[in-house]
Amino acid sequence: MQKEKKLGRGVAIVGAGMSRFGMFPDKDSKDLFAEAYQEMVASIDKGFDPKDIEAIWIGNFSNDFFIHQAHWGPIISDLLGLAPRPATRTEGACASSTLAFRDATMAIASGLYDVVLVGGVEEMSKRTTEEVTEGLALATFPYEGRAGFTFPGVFGALATAYFAKYGAGREHLMNITIKSHENAPLNPKAQFNKTIADLMAAKKAKAEREGKPVPDWRDEKEALWDPKFNPPVAWPMHLFDCCPISDGASCMLLVAEDIARSFTDEPVYVAGIGQGSGRGLHAAPSLTSFEANKHAAAEAYGMSGYKPQDIQFAEVHDCFSIAELIHIEDLGFFEAGEGYKAVAEGATRREGSMPINTSGGLKCKGHPVGATGVAQLYEVWKQLRGEAGERQIPGRELHVGAAQNLGGTGGTCTFTILERR
Amino acid sequence: MQKEKKLGRGVAIVGAGMSRFGMFPDKDSKDLFAEAYQEMVASIDKGFDPKDIEAIWIGNFSNDFFIHQAHWGPIISDLLGLAPRPATRTEGACASSTLAFRDATMAIASGLYDVVLVGGVEEMSKRTTEEVTEGLALATFPYEGRAGFTFPGVFGALATAYFAKYGAGREHLMNITIKSHENAPLNPKAQFNKTIADLMAAKKAKAEREGKPVPDWRDEKEALWDPKFNPPVAWPMHLFDCCPISDGASCMLLVAEDIARSFTDEPVYVAGIGQGSGRGLHAAPSLTSFEANKHAAAEAYGMSGYKPQDIQFAEVHDCFSIAELIHIEDLGFFEAGEGYKAVAEGATRREGSMPINTSGGLKCKGHPVGATGVAQLYEVWKQLRGEAGERQIPGRELHVGAAQNLGGTGGTCTFTILERR
Repeated sequence: MQKEKKLGRGVAIVGAGMSRFGMFPDKDSKDLFAEAYQEMVASIDKGFDPKDIEAIWIGNFSNDFFIHQAHWGPIISDLLGLAPRPATRTEGACASSTLAFRDATMAIASGLYDVVLVGGVEEMSKRTTEEVTEGLALATFPYEGRAGFTFPGVFGALATAYFAKYGAGREHLMNITIKSHENAPLNPKAQFNKTIADLMAAKKAKAEREGKPVPDWRDEKEALWDPKFNPPVAWPMHLFDCCPISDGASCMLLVAEDIARSFTDEPVYVAGIGQGSGRGLHAAPSLTSFEANKHAAAEAYGMSGYKPQDIQFAEVHDCFSIAELIHIEDLGFFEAGEGYKAVAEGATRREGSMPINTSGGLKCKGHPVGATGVAQLYEVWKQLRGEAGERQIPGRELHVGAAQNLGGTGGTCTFTILERR
Repeated sequence: MQKEKKLGRGVAIVGAGMSRFGMFPDKDSKDLFAEAYQEMVASIDKGFDPKDIEAIWIGNFSNDFFIHQAHWGPIISDLLGLAPRPATRTEGACASSTLAFRDATMAIASGLYDVVLVGGVEEMSKRTTEEVTEGLALATFPYEGRAGFTFPGVFGALATAYFAKYGAGREHLMNITIKSHENAPLNPKAQFNKTIADLMAAKKAKAEREGKPVPDWRDEKEALWDPKFNPPVAWPMHLFDCCPISDGASCMLLVAEDIARSFTDEPVYVAGIGQGSGRGLHAAPSLTSFEANKHAAAEAYGMSGYKPQDIQFAEVHDCFSIAELIHIEDLGFFEAGEGYKAVAEGATRREGSMPINTSGGLKCKGHPVGATGVAQLYEVWKQLRGEAGERQIPGRELHVGAAQNLGGTGGTCTFTILERR
């Protein structure tokens, strides 16, 4: 649809950090951002002077709603001692910080700046679950959330459509959940650090201790079918299909390509950035695909010259398990209607042919919405540099990875391709 | 402080529109944006196909708070039939839409897009005055609004500091109010369309009709000193020092410089864009200047090559009368401490040497906060093209105009210089 677009000059990531994700009653957004920033600074192996940062872009969905504070640009700039440098907040629901990343990339490509800080933050856990549901619904289209169609219901509807069209079922979504729970314990930043098997064992031990009937689940799926272990939220979405409420922050240092190696010997380059908009479910051409994904993917593939089969691994926006299936098909990693079969065969596991969400995904790493986009890119950065520790993708040299970020009910999608050279 | 920066390629404005500003119980944000968009489309004299728009940036402060709806990018993209094109919301308090303008400018300069829609919207009047005060306080620094230091108080403090430092008084602020009320009736989009003299006459007529004592004000200032005509809000800020609560929208079509003349024979070019951040009043180096202004001005002057004396007229962010004084000094139009004297001599009137806020300013045109930045640029566009009608600056050929936009208590400032060629 769109013409092939190139940036006027290249952009590289030379540092990255993220806070621990989780529910932190004793930390605020500034604490969390400082935690991410400190890791980022430490990651810049040749060192840098923070005063070289010329501008800031920061994604935040709605701390307006969650903690009654907007205008995060200058708060972050002040926090880091970077005033009077310009600081801009972007908002695209759960894709807010990828919008910051994209705007910062274009700012460097435009020639205006050489060194830009980009990040995201969200502080959600000080609200009740009901309030968070209400707050997140601000990101739906007006004819969705206000009519009672909040996120679990929306993704339940998408799953139902996918099941009906392709013959998949809840057991296929469970494969995604099980995989995320296997990756997360290997990620020290993740909100959850137990596998499904760990959680089953804990439930059994508790029942034994309390002299109650001990569940006799033979495997993970049997537990996930048990509504006592995995209660329904909005059919077919059950508890283990849904990401948690989280606090967290993430950030990166972007620089012009030609100066990247003065910061680190291991820069990661921006190969393609793409973004698209959707129209809400009532007008969507399909309930098993996001039109915004297709546009974002076409932009990013066009810019990078890469094709889906060139992408070696990806983080995708699994706010709900069904979303992961839709994304890996929309992005061309698998044919439409084939994703759930590939997942069942293990293709998306760390050792599979196309590892997806090695971080644990939003499901297990956590989803502080404004921080998520840059945190996905942090995982791609870690994997590309071979620094992902125990969760490093085994047995292959990594050159090209990607992250897909979703905002709202498909209102905003981004797709970002990073590469080593 | 910062290096001189240039954009990789030039950017031009080829169309502009704004809704009427005011309090519209029967219009929502989409209605208002559509109104602005229709005027913009009509202004593109050689015509264009909306499908040529490749991306959108839209400024909105906190419709999250005001009408419980965030994620305005895809809503606007859907409204205009532009999905799946990418749409990004920027937020920088009352400077939100200038941030959109700056990001869109860099997007074109980066080479990524050739044709970009930029705009802003805010829908405030469905909340009570108390609620709007609370909502706007989301834009202060956490250690201001939450401590009770809301906007009228903040600007009252700045005015007090200015008075103490330079020997000015309320009578000098009144000159600004009187001038704004003289310009606004010439602007068909303005929220208020009466001069102070009109309002005095109306009050006198009403008193006469009702058989009450008729005020014997001899001139505008005598009326503005009368607390019955002009009650205090936060000393020395009185009612007529403060902008109103407004709904409205604004938008512009930006294109790459080399294709501008295929849209219009009268493009207006982006000569300089600048942005800066402040640290809140407790840490500000001065209470009679915004450090964010100085940074924004240095960036924009540096990029454009223009000096303050080259700017022929400007719109500045007069959310309160004192702000106009501070800005015209910060931007170098007048020496620090000299602005109030120049205003008293009529320098900032339409026929003066440096016309300021020919639109009527925020005070009289209205201030739907997310729409304000691009609406300021709309006025500069109108003046530069000689299309400002009755309020056209008389007696001179205009080539260079500028707009200054403020967010929060100085947290964000932008300065944008436009030119004819």
